[in-house]
Amino acid sequence: MRLSRFHLHTTKETPADADVVSQQLMLRAGMIRKLAAGIYTWTPLGLRVLRKVEGIVREEMNRAGALEMLMPSVQPRELWEETGRWQKFGGQLLKIRDRKDAEFCYGPTHEEVVTDWARSELSSYKQLPVNVYQIQTKFRDEIRPRFGVMRAREFLMKDAYSFHLTPECLARGYQVMFDAYTRIFERLGLRFRAVQADSGAIGGNASQEFHVLADSGEDLIAYSTGSSYAANVEKAEAAAPGPRPVAAEAMARVATPAQTTCEDVAALLGLPLERTVKSVAVVGASGFCLLLVRGDHQVNEVKAANLPAIGADYRPATEEEIVAHLGCKPGFIGPVSPQREITVVADRTVAAMADFVCGANTEGFHLTGVNFGRDLPEPALVADIRSVVEGDLSPDGQGTLALCRGIEVGHVFQLGQTYAKSLGATVLDENGAAQVMYMGCYGIGVSRIVAAAIEQNHDAAGIIWPEPMAPWQVAVCIINPKNDPAVAEAAEALHGELQALGIETVLDDRGLRPGPMFADIELLGIPHRVVVSERGLAAGTFEYRARRAEAAEALDKAALLERLRH
Amino acid sequence: MRLSRFHLHTTKETPADADVVSQQLMLRAGMIRKLAAGIYTWTPLGLRVLRKVEGIVREEMNRAGALEMLMPSVQPRELWEETGRWQKFGGQLLKIRDRKDAEFCYGPTHEEVVTDWARSELSSYKQLPVNVYQIQTKFRDEIRPRFGVMRAREFLMKDAYSFHLTPECLARGYQVMFDAYTRIFERLGLRFRAVQADSGAIGGNASQEFHVLADSGEDLIAYSTGSSYAANVEKAEAAAPGPRPVAAEAMARVATPAQTTCEDVAALLGLPLERTVKSVAVVGASGFCLLLVRGDHQVNEVKAANLPAIGADYRPATEEEIVAHLGCKPGFIGPVSPQREITVVADRTVAAMADFVCGANTEGFHLTGVNFGRDLPEPALVADIRSVVEGDLSPDGQGTLALCRGIEVGHVFQLGQTYAKSLGATVLDENGAAQVMYMGCYGIGVSRIVAAAIEQNHDAAGIIWPEPMAPWQVAVCIINPKNDPAVAEAAEALHGELQALGIETVLDDRGLRPGPMFADIELLGIPHRVVVSERGLAAGTFEYRARRAEAAEALDKAALLERLRH
Repeated sequence: MRLSRFHLHTTKETPADADVVSQQLMLRAGMIRKLAAGIYTWTPLGLRVLRKVEGIVREEMNRAGALEMLMPSVQPRELWEETGRWQKFGGQLLKIRDRKDAEFCYGPTHEEVVTDWARSELSSYKQLPVNVYQIQTKFRDEIRPRFGVMRAREFLMKDAYSFHLTPECLARGYQVMFDAYTRIFERLGLRFRAVQADSGAIGGNASQEFHVLADSGEDLIAYSTGSSYAANVEKAEAAAPGPRPVAAEAMARVATPAQTTCEDVAALLGLPLERTVKSVAVVGASGFCLLLVRGDHQVNEVKAANLPAIGADYRPATEEEIVAHLGCKPGFIGPVSPQREITVVADRTVAAMADFVCGANTEGFHLTGVNFGRDLPEPALVADIRSVVEGDLSPDGQGTLALCRGIEVGHVFQLGQTYAKSLGATVLDENGAAQVMYMGCYGIGVSRIVAAAIEQNHDAAGIIWPEPMAPWQVAVCIINPKNDPAVAEAAEALHGELQALGIETVLDDRGLRPGPMFADIELLGIPHRVVVSERGLAAGTFEYRARRAEAAEALDKAALLERLRH
Repeated sequence: MRLSRFHLHTTKETPADADVVSQQLMLRAGMIRKLAAGIYTWTPLGLRVLRKVEGIVREEMNRAGALEMLMPSVQPRELWEETGRWQKFGGQLLKIRDRKDAEFCYGPTHEEVVTDWARSELSSYKQLPVNVYQIQTKFRDEIRPRFGVMRAREFLMKDAYSFHLTPECLARGYQVMFDAYTRIFERLGLRFRAVQADSGAIGGNASQEFHVLADSGEDLIAYSTGSSYAANVEKAEAAAPGPRPVAAEAMARVATPAQTTCEDVAALLGLPLERTVKSVAVVGASGFCLLLVRGDHQVNEVKAANLPAIGADYRPATEEEIVAHLGCKPGFIGPVSPQREITVVADRTVAAMADFVCGANTEGFHLTGVNFGRDLPEPALVADIRSVVEGDLSPDGQGTLALCRGIEVGHVFQLGQTYAKSLGATVLDENGAAQVMYMGCYGIGVSRIVAAAIEQNHDAAGIIWPEPMAPWQVAVCIINPKNDPAVAEAAEALHGELQALGIETVLDDRGLRPGPMFADIELLGIPHRVVVSERGLAAGTFEYRARRAEAAEALDKAALLERLRH
């Protein structure tokens, strides 16, 4: 490819409305162009990268035995009514009415359509397992589309669905997909982690997310420094604490006139923060409730919501509710002697504490030396309701936890029978009895990967593509201010030779000065740059620079080819 | 690929609601599955074929120097308002409202989006010409979706757009696309014809359609038996007739009591039909009008509508209007002595007739020996308003015309400045002056090609794929009722060997009896079938049959490979 014939359009200015570095660099390099909020055109440059990702995903899905198909983007309301998701999916579902007033949606995902396909195409256990996938444009009407293609409304996704007779077969199929995903992200050249995820509202048993690691990631991930354990902080289990020590202190009321946080109370009393207990008042499925976590810990909302007593719809209690139940304003509340009967849920760490400090339910006072079973009843419920922190023991007992940030680019789910049941997708088993199929679903955000890769790999000059994702592996730059035909010919020859070796090469024949030309090549993130110039030709060398290298070096042809072939 | 692991689902029954043979065979072979009216899932089998077409289209577009990009499917109303097409496009435009009540459409085509891209990305004549394309899902809300994927609402299209500084450059770019299309349809192995088309409402100068020839095609095509001339009958020019003979008869009124058609009048009078003139009463741009064509000819509605005096909105006159203007009911009307003044438009053939027969504007009577300039004024307008018929002289003077039917699968257009003007897409020319760009647009119905290929290539047993479109080139069928491991091994080995030679091969290891197995392979249209059986192994041969061959033949390995390599 000659860059003079390729439609390249770079800018130096950082676009005003770009929130994250990947969006800024994709716009500056001219990979994408915004058409409307969350809706982007992929230019020829951007599409080259997108297709690289798509190609690797496709190859590994095929290798894993999945069959590619193509389902419609426009889906009838009736099907979504069968699973109840026409309502439940919420505002992200883009609804459409056709000229005959029939209702449709622009598919944000394809569980309904694929299960409808399965119920009519699969009739016998002999046809199972089946894994089908597609790489297709989806639409989710995000209320705040942002971060460019990272959280766009129209996006490219690979979604796969597997069908099985038994949960054991589903677990095997799930593992096959897990392994395929691992190969995909390895082949893409990205630093990533597979983490345990909360399966949340989708239900099902097992669920893991694949995150590209990047400081700018929206998700917080906990991983063990001593094992392969990793989990989304939403889900990461806090290791069970040791047994509760014996009570050693008597309960006492201490004045804390202006101390409304555990930090302030601990400082006033000269005690470590780990001796205090924080009481978080919420209203959930079983009414007013106090969640107790250690002073230096935070309530994990996802874990709390997963407790039946709390439930997904829980909310913070209002000041009025707090006063009504505890007889005291926030800042001094605690689980001892509430005004009315309340439910107390203690984090496992708290349940293992003795002689702790908590609010006295009297304004201006806290209690010290508090002990369960003596000063207040044992908690109604003991559960893991806190987020893990750096340094926690890994729940698998190997090493301690560290935290990092990630961008979710893949997700594998064991859905179980949820969709198959509501859509009546059954097959006959060996005994001729109808069995509801077990399903797995497996997504990869193809367009999001492009942005995530940039978040992970960039510097002040621009993008630094992992080789498998680069639009071209090598840029051959012609520096030829005197228009010496020998220079142009040498560059053409090198370009041709590299192409013939199967190395994707672009020839920068735009006739720019070295400054702007090199700036473009660096902004575009091309892994290898080779300069052909009069001076180099005279010395029998090419100037070579890897995108991540500090400086260029002069290499003769043989050394150059050696370098580019790896 | 092993067929046992491929999700194949064939049926013997012809689906009740399938109108055309391609739809029947695609459903029976399990290539597509209907989700809603005009909305289909492409199964793994169907997608294999679709991807073959897509691949050839992409390769030839790239070879022609076009750059692939990917524009959004969801497009904002504002852009369509700029060209006036938000209203003008009509009911086929699927309109969408998002959660914030902003209006969008599901792109049925991308002139607006690509011109918006061009106006912001292209600023100098130095960047021109540019040709960009995409292969993308489109939606047209057809009022009567039918014929399966042939006239579906959601479909896959390749659309390309070129931008130029001058009409001459546009003409060159258009020719490049014309040549690329010719290569595409040649490589697909389809019998096709490029025909001149009416550019109709889209405007612009030149426009050609590519038709796959098939008896079931919706379009009628005229082509010369003596040259490369071909045109859609909508557009095909009727060659100019010779000069008008001198009048030889006197005008006479003859009783035709029950003869209301030219055929009946000619029969009664014992005259050839070619001596009669048919008068077609319409109301158009210039009011009530008689269109005169020879008795054996038909008015061509597209040609008539293209006359400014008639216009696109013309309609047949009502009986009341006919009586009011001609003083006579339909069946006996003609251009001589109308009640009121009327506009007469004569086809060129009619204008060259003398002594013709036409209605007398008196019920029960016709006139014979009628001559222009003597019995009635010369017609107000003489134009080519008839459809060509088999045997007409070719308008290029070489040979005569024959007719065939075709399915439109591609269209190339010189749009000119229409869209660029309304969207203000200009570049600076060599003198620094802003110039509105010239545009071409070039479409290929990728999914329609699959159906069109079947319409052209099928027999009673099923589909007969042209090799480049076949899901696999070769099926290796295992006939092994005794479960002889040697037979299975020989088949596996042959399958592996063919794959290694780069011949796409599927192994039919489903263990079916020969009847159902061969029926499936024929229904699927696989070009080459090879049977591995105990008997064949004993004789050292394979049973080979080409899909179009009458019978199978026994070939040894060397002969088989020779045959499959061509």
